[in-house]
Amino acid sequence: MTGLNSSCGACKFLRRRCTNECIFAPYFSYEHATTHFSAVHKVFGASNVSKLLSCLPVLERTDAAITVAYEALARMHDPVYGCVSHIFSLQQQIACLMEEIEVIENQMANRAVDICNNPYLFTQSNIDQSVPILDSEIAAVDQISEIYLDSGIIERLLQELDQD
Amino acid sequence: MTGLNSSCGACKFLRRRCTNECIFAPYFSYEHATTHFSAVHKVFGASNVSKLLSCLPVLERTDAAITVAYEALARMHDPVYGCVSHIFSLQQQIACLMEEIEVIENQMANRAVDICNNPYLFTQSNIDQSVPILDSEIAAVDQISEIYLDSGIIERLLQELDQD
Repeated sequence: MTGLNSSCGACKFLRRRCTNECIFAPYFSYEHATTHFSAVHKVFGASNVSKLLSCLPVLERTDAAITVAYEALARMHDPVYGCVSHIFSLQQQIACLMEEIEVIENQMANRAVDICNNPYLFTQSNIDQSVPILDSEIAAVDQISEIYLDSGIIERLLQELDQD
Repeated sequence: MTGLNSSCGACKFLRRRCTNECIFAPYFSYEHATTHFSAVHKVFGASNVSKLLSCLPVLERTDAAITVAYEALARMHDPVYGCVSHIFSLQQQIACLMEEIEVIENQMANRAVDICNNPYLFTQSNIDQSVPILDSEIAAVDQISEIYLDSGIIERLLQELDQD
C-alpha cells in the first residue's frame, strides 16, 4: 500500500484492495505502473511474478520487477521476438564495430608499409595527400560513434514502449 | 501430436494427451523440449504462451516459441535479471569496442602528425621503431576480436543453460 486511500499500480489493475503486505506495492507505485503491470500480468501472469518476487531477497526485488516489466512491455511491443530483438540489434552493432576495427587495422598496416617503403612521400609538401585519407577514416569512426549506447537501457525502453 | 504414441514436450510436462490440435507440439518436440517447457510454464504459464502463439500467424510461431523458451530459461538461470543480463553484457562489449576505436583513432591522428612533422624518422633504418608500435596496436585489436559474437545466440544460450 503506497499511502492512505491509494493502491499500487498492480492492485489498481487487479481491482483489489492494496494492503501493507502487498508484494507488488514497493515496485509498482510509479506513474505508469498500472499500464506496466497490465503487460506484466498478460505476459507472465500476476501469480508467477508474485512467486518470483517472493523467492528473492528484498534487495534484489526492485531489479527483478524492472526487468520483468521491461520483458513484458517488449513482448507486448513485439509479440514474436520480445526483448530478444534488442539482443539481435546489439549483436549487429558489435558486428559493425568489429568490422570497423578490422578496416582501421588494415588501413594502419597498409600505411605503415607505405611509410617504411616511401618515407619521403610523407613530407610537409605532401601533407595535403595524407590529410584527406585521415579525415575519411575519422569520419567513419565518428559515424560509428553515433551508434546509440546508454547504460540506462531499461528506463529508456520503458519510455519508448510507453510512447508506442 | 508428434507421432504415434508420442506426446510433445509440453504435453509430457503437463501430463496430458497430445492431440493433433496441440498448439505446442510443432514447437516443443525436440530433445530437451520437456525441460524447456517446464521453464516456460514456470515463468510465463502454459496458458499465457498458448494465447500468445494462438494470436500469431503460423509462420511466426516458431520464432516466438524459441524466444519465449530462451527468456524463460534465462530467467530460471538468473531470477533477478533474466535475459536482460545478456543485454547488459552486450552493451558492455559495445562500450569496450567504441573505446578501442577511439584509442586507435587517436593513435592514427598522433602518428599522422608525427609523420608530417618528422617524415625522415620513418626511413627503412628506423623501421624497428615503428614495427613494435604497430604490433601493440594489432595485439589490442586481436584481443577485442576475441569477444564472443555469434548470430546463433539463442541456440547457444539454450545449450549453455541446459548445461548449468
